[in-house]
Amino acid sequence: MEANSSLNLPLILRMANMINITFPDGAVRQYEVGTTSMDIAKSISEGLARKILAASVNGEVWDLSRPINSDACVKFLTWDDTDGKSTFWHSSAHLMAEAVESKFPGAKFWVGPAIDKGFYYDIDLGDKKINEEDLAELEKKMNELAKQNNVYTRKAMPKAEAVAYFTEKGDEYKLDLLQNLNDGEITFYTQGQFTDLCRGPHIPNTGFIKAIKLTSIAGAYWKGDEKNKQLTRIYGVTFPNQKELDEYLLMLEEAKKRDHRKLGKELGIYTMNDDIGPGLILWMPNGTIIIEELEKLAKKTEEDAGYKRVVTPHIAKENLYLTSGHLPYYADSMFPPMDMDGEKYYMKAMNCPHHHKIFDAEPKSYRDMPYRIAEYGTCYRYEQSGELFGLMRVRCLHMNDAHIYCSKEQFAQEFKAVNDMYLKYFKIFGIEKYVMRLSLHDPEKLGQKYVNEPELWNETEELVRNVLIETGVPFVEVKGEGAFYGPKIDVQIWSAIGREFTLATNQVDFAQPRSFNLKFTNQNNEPEVPLIIHRAPLGTHERFIGFLLEHYAGKFPLWLASLQVKILPISDKFLPYANSILQSLKNADIRAEIDDRNEKIGKKIRDTELARVPYMLVVGEKEMNEGKAAVRRQGKGDLGAKDVNEFIAEAVAEIKERRAE
Amino acid sequence: MEANSSLNLPLILRMANMINITFPDGAVRQYEVGTTSMDIAKSISEGLARKILAASVNGEVWDLSRPINSDACVKFLTWDDTDGKSTFWHSSAHLMAEAVESKFPGAKFWVGPAIDKGFYYDIDLGDKKINEEDLAELEKKMNELAKQNNVYTRKAMPKAEAVAYFTEKGDEYKLDLLQNLNDGEITFYTQGQFTDLCRGPHIPNTGFIKAIKLTSIAGAYWKGDEKNKQLTRIYGVTFPNQKELDEYLLMLEEAKKRDHRKLGKELGIYTMNDDIGPGLILWMPNGTIIIEELEKLAKKTEEDAGYKRVVTPHIAKENLYLTSGHLPYYADSMFPPMDMDGEKYYMKAMNCPHHHKIFDAEPKSYRDMPYRIAEYGTCYRYEQSGELFGLMRVRCLHMNDAHIYCSKEQFAQEFKAVNDMYLKYFKIFGIEKYVMRLSLHDPEKLGQKYVNEPELWNETEELVRNVLIETGVPFVEVKGEGAFYGPKIDVQIWSAIGREFTLATNQVDFAQPRSFNLKFTNQNNEPEVPLIIHRAPLGTHERFIGFLLEHYAGKFPLWLASLQVKILPISDKFLPYANSILQSLKNADIRAEIDDRNEKIGKKIRDTELARVPYMLVVGEKEMNEGKAAVRRQGKGDLGAKDVNEFIAEAVAEIKERRAE
Repeated sequence: MEANSSLNLPLILRMANMINITFPDGAVRQYEVGTTSMDIAKSISEGLARKILAASVNGEVWDLSRPINSDACVKFLTWDDTDGKSTFWHSSAHLMAEAVESKFPGAKFWVGPAIDKGFYYDIDLGDKKINEEDLAELEKKMNELAKQNNVYTRKAMPKAEAVAYFTEKGDEYKLDLLQNLNDGEITFYTQGQFTDLCRGPHIPNTGFIKAIKLTSIAGAYWKGDEKNKQLTRIYGVTFPNQKELDEYLLMLEEAKKRDHRKLGKELGIYTMNDDIGPGLILWMPNGTIIIEELEKLAKKTEEDAGYKRVVTPHIAKENLYLTSGHLPYYADSMFPPMDMDGEKYYMKAMNCPHHHKIFDAEPKSYRDMPYRIAEYGTCYRYEQSGELFGLMRVRCLHMNDAHIYCSKEQFAQEFKAVNDMYLKYFKIFGIEKYVMRLSLHDPEKLGQKYVNEPELWNETEELVRNVLIETGVPFVEVKGEGAFYGPKIDVQIWSAIGREFTLATNQVDFAQPRSFNLKFTNQNNEPEVPLIIHRAPLGTHERFIGFLLEHYAGKFPLWLASLQVKILPISDKFLPYANSILQSLKNADIRAEIDDRNEKIGKKIRDTELARVPYMLVVGEKEMNEGKAAVRRQGKGDLGAKDVNEFIAEAVAEIKERRAE
Repeated sequence: MEANSSLNLPLILRMANMINITFPDGAVRQYEVGTTSMDIAKSISEGLARKILAASVNGEVWDLSRPINSDACVKFLTWDDTDGKSTFWHSSAHLMAEAVESKFPGAKFWVGPAIDKGFYYDIDLGDKKINEEDLAELEKKMNELAKQNNVYTRKAMPKAEAVAYFTEKGDEYKLDLLQNLNDGEITFYTQGQFTDLCRGPHIPNTGFIKAIKLTSIAGAYWKGDEKNKQLTRIYGVTFPNQKELDEYLLMLEEAKKRDHRKLGKELGIYTMNDDIGPGLILWMPNGTIIIEELEKLAKKTEEDAGYKRVVTPHIAKENLYLTSGHLPYYADSMFPPMDMDGEKYYMKAMNCPHHHKIFDAEPKSYRDMPYRIAEYGTCYRYEQSGELFGLMRVRCLHMNDAHIYCSKEQFAQEFKAVNDMYLKYFKIFGIEKYVMRLSLHDPEKLGQKYVNEPELWNETEELVRNVLIETGVPFVEVKGEGAFYGPKIDVQIWSAIGREFTLATNQVDFAQPRSFNLKFTNQNNEPEVPLIIHRAPLGTHERFIGFLLEHYAGKFPLWLASLQVKILPISDKFLPYANSILQSLKNADIRAEIDDRNEKIGKKIRDTELARVPYMLVVGEKEMNEGKAAVRRQGKGDLGAKDVNEFIAEAVAEIKERRAE
C-alpha cells in the first residue's frame, strides 16, 4: 500500500516480518509474525492478560497461544463473552474427561461440547455404571487437577498418524470422528494426563476453573440414534469463582419454585389437553386477562407509534408460501397441508405474507410510507413433540407482530424507533439486563439457507449494525443465524433471578418485497421497492407470559394481575359493606372479588397471599363505621387503614401507570 | 273423555259429526266434519276470511278449501306469515306458468317453487328463446289472468291415471316427478286454463295477486346436473298490493348502492386475495377498527354480565371432534384434516369443544355455576366455493362466541339474560325489526341429523319456548332446523332498508355435556351434568360488519367510524392550528386526521363527505383567532362554529354513549 494513496487510507508503514493487528475500536498496532494473542494482550496490560480466555481472530475463536502469521482483526474474549464462556466450558469438559479417565480407566470418549449453560461429555464406560456418589468423587478430582494449572496444548497431526494412533488404542469413536476430517485440519489437545482429538479452542490452563458442579447423568444414544449403543452423558457447569457458582445454584433452586408450568397450573393461567394436542395452549380465564392487558399495552404503544391494525386468516394456499419462500426454506417448521378444492392450504407459520397482501391491496405512494401494520397474529409452527416445553416451546403462537414497509432512507429512523419501543417495554417490565443478538447470514449457505443476494445481505447488515452502534444498545453478532430473507435481531433478556430468555425478534427483509412485487410510487413518480422490518418486541404471548411468570414469581404487578383486589370481611355481618366496596371497585374497572367463605380472617389472608392477589381489603366493624378498609399488599403485609375512595384512586393510578409495584 | 275426569281436563262435550278445532290461543271450537279452514274463518269474521291465504292444520300448510275431517289445531296464515308468503308466491309461479303456456304453447314445466323472496319456474321452451321484452308481455298477461279471480282447485288422481295423462301429453318432466310419488299422494291443481301436478297448497284465487314483477331470466340445468338439458328459469316476485312492490323495488335499488362488497372496497374495510384463498377475509386497517370497537363493546357487555374470557387454539385432534359429534354430524362443513405425528388434526368449525375442555380443566362446584366463558373465536367452515359471497358467506369466521354451563334450575334465568343481551345490542345498533326463529328437531331424523335423545329434545325445547313466551320476544317455530346437539334460536333482523339478515344464534345443548362427561358437584355433594347455552349475539364479524355496512350505508355512527374527525384547513397557513386541534383530539382518543392537501376547501369537504367521515372541522383565520372550528356533520352539513374543547367534550360523550347519531 502506498503512503500517498489517493484513497486516503490510514498511514501504516509495514516493516519486514511485522503484521498489522486491528482491534475492535479500529486501532491498528504492529507485531512480529508468529505473535500470539496472549503476547498481544501482555503488550497491552498484564491485568488484561490474566482476564482473557481466548481471542477472536478474524472472526474465528482461537487459543491465546496460537501464533498469528498475517494481518488480523483481534478481539479478546473474557468470561463476559458468549464465546469466552463456551471456550471455558469446553475446556471444563476436557477436565472432566481427565477425571473420568483417571477414575474409569479404559473409558472411551465421544463428544464433549459446551452448551447454553455448562457442558457435557458422552462417554462409553464399558460395562461400568456411574452414580451420584461418583459425581462427587469426580468433582473432587477435577478440583485437584484444576489446581495443577495444567496448560492446554495444541498439536496438529497428519490424518494417517491420527488414525494409526486411535486404531492402536481401539477407540472406534474417535476413528469415526476422523472419517469426516480432512488431512491438515486434525489437531489434538492435551492437558495434564489427558489427550483428546479436538479442534479447540481452549483456555490457557486449568487454573482458570475455580468452581465446579457436575449436575446430572443421562443416557444418550450414540449419534442420537436409538439403534446405537447408549453412552453415559455427564452434565456439568463451571465458573471462574465460587461466588458465581453459588449464585447459579441458588438461581436454579429459585427457578424451580418459579417454574412457569407449576405456577401456570396453580394460578389457573393455562392448561393443555391430550384431545386437543401437544403444544396447543388453552388459555384459562386468569391467563386471558394477562393476554388482554398485554394486548392493550401493545395496541396503545403501537397506535402512538403510528401503526395501523389488521386481522388476517390463519391459512393460505400453497402458492403464497412458494412466493414468500416459506415452503422452499422453512417447510420443516410448517404444519402439513390440507387438501381442499384440489389445492393445498397451509396454516401460517408467520404473518408476513398475509400482511404483504394487505400492503398490496391498494396502490401506495410516498405519502403512505412508512406503512406500519400490526396484528396479534396466531401462527402455527411444527416442533417435534419431544421439543415441546410448557409455554416456552409450543405449536400455536400468538405473536406481537407488525411489519413496517419503508424506503431505504426511512429505514434507519424506523429501525431505531423499533429499538426504542423495545427499551420502553423493558422499562415497564423491569427488565434490566438485555442483549441484542444480531444474526447474520453465512456466505457459504447462500441459496440454501439464505436467499442468494450477497450484496443486499451486506448492505442491510451494515444498516442494522450502524443503528445498533448509534443507539448504544448492547449487542453481539452471530454469523449464520439470520432469517432466510435478511438479517435478524433476537433479543435476549434476563429474568429477575438471572435466567436468560430469547423472546423478541426484529428482522430486516429485502427479499420478500421483491418476490411479492411490492411497490410504492416515490416522489419522482417512479415505482420503488420498499424494505420491510418484521418486528415482535413482546414476542409471543406464550413465551412472554412464561417469562413473566418466572420473572415475577407469579406476583404480577397490579395492572397485570388477573384478580387485583380481594375484599375480606371479618364476618358475614360485613358482607353488605364488602359488597358496596366491590361495587365501587368495579365502577373503577378494578378486578375484585369478595372472600365470602365462612372462614377465619387469618385463613382468608393466607389463601389470598397464596393466590398472589396484590391487594387485600380487610373489613370489620371499625372499618365499616369509618368508610375505610385495612389494606394489605402482597409481600409487604399490613399498610394500615385507608379511606376506601382514597385507596381506589391510588390503585387506579398504579394501574394506569403500569407501575412495577 | 269423561266429563268428571280426575285429570281435570277442560270440559269439551263432543257431538256426533262434529270435530274439535283448537286455535293458537288454546281456544277450542266445534265444527262439522268436513268443514274447511275458510268456513272456520268466515264463522269468525268476514274480514279475517278476506285476509287469509292458507292455514296451518296440525302443523301442515293446507289450502283453505280443503275439508278437515278430524280434530285439528288450526292457525290461519296471512301475508305476514312466512308460510303465507310462500303459498302466495308458489301460486304466483302457477300464474306465471299459465301466462307462459298461453304465450309459448307446448312449453313443458319442471318445478316452480317459492324462494326467499318470490318464486321461479324452470321451463323447457323447446327451441324458443325468451328475452326482457317477453317478460314485460308475461307480466301483462299475468295481471290480466290475476284479475279473473280464477280459483285454484285441487284434485287427487290415482298414479296410473296421472302417468297416462302425462304420457299422452309427452311431458317427460312430470313423468319423472311422478316416479317419486306414491299412489294416493298425487294431486293436481288447476287455475284458469292451467293444470299442474302439484302437492300444493295454494291461495284461494288469483285475485289476491295484485302486483307482479318478473325480475330475471337464467339458465338452469335440469336437476342441477350440467350433463342434462338447460332449462329456462324465470324469476319473479308478487305482492298483495302495488305499494309493497314499489317499496320492494326501491329497497332493491338502495340495497345495490349499499352493497357491502362495493362499500367494503370503497371504504378500505376488507379485501380478498387469490393466493390466500376464497372466503378468507383480509381485514384492512379501517375494517379492523370496526372489529376492535365491536370487540370492546362485546367484552364490556360480557364482563358486566359475569362472563370470563378464554383463548383457545384453532385446531384439535380428530378424537375431540368424534367426542363432540362434529365429525359424525357435521363433517361436510369442516375443513379437511392435516396428518401430523400419525394423527389427524382438524381446524375448529366451532369453539365449543375447546371451551368444554377449559370447563373440565379444574373441578367445578355449584359455587362456580353458572360458569360463563367467552371468546372471539375464529372458526373455519367449509362452504362450496360457489356459495361464498362477500362477507356474508365465508370460510373463516370470527365469532362472538360464549358458552354458559349451568344447572337446569339456572337455565331459564341464564337464557333470559342472553335474550336481554340481544335486545340491548339491537338498541345500540338501531335494529328495530327482529324475529327469533326457534329451530326444533325433526323426530324422523333422530340418530341421523340429531342426537337420539327424544325426551331431552322435548324437554329443552319446552324450556326455551317458555322463556321466549315469558319475555314476549317475537318468535316463530321451525321443525327440522335445530343444531345436532339441541334446539337453536336463529335471530333474524332487518336492516334500515328492510332487508332481512340471519345473524346471531343461541343454542341449547344437552348432548355435549354428556359426551364430554362434564360435571359439577351440586349442593347435595353429588356430581351433576350441566346444561350448556351456546350463544353469539353479534354473530360473526364477517356477517355483522357486512350487515352494518348496508344498515348504515357506510355512514357509521361516530363510535364505530374508522376515521371520526377530519380537520380541513382552508390553506397551509392554518396547518399549525389544525395540528394543535389534531393533538387535542388524539389526547381525547378520537381518531382524527388533517387533510393537508393543497386543494380548495370545497373539494376537501366533498372528498371527506364521500369517505363518510362523521365530523369535519373547517379552520381558517376567524376560527383560529377564536379557538374554534366550523363543524360539519356527515349528511347534515354545517352546524356552525364551535369552541374546539366544547366540540371535543361533545364528541367524547357521543362516542362513550355509542350514540346512533
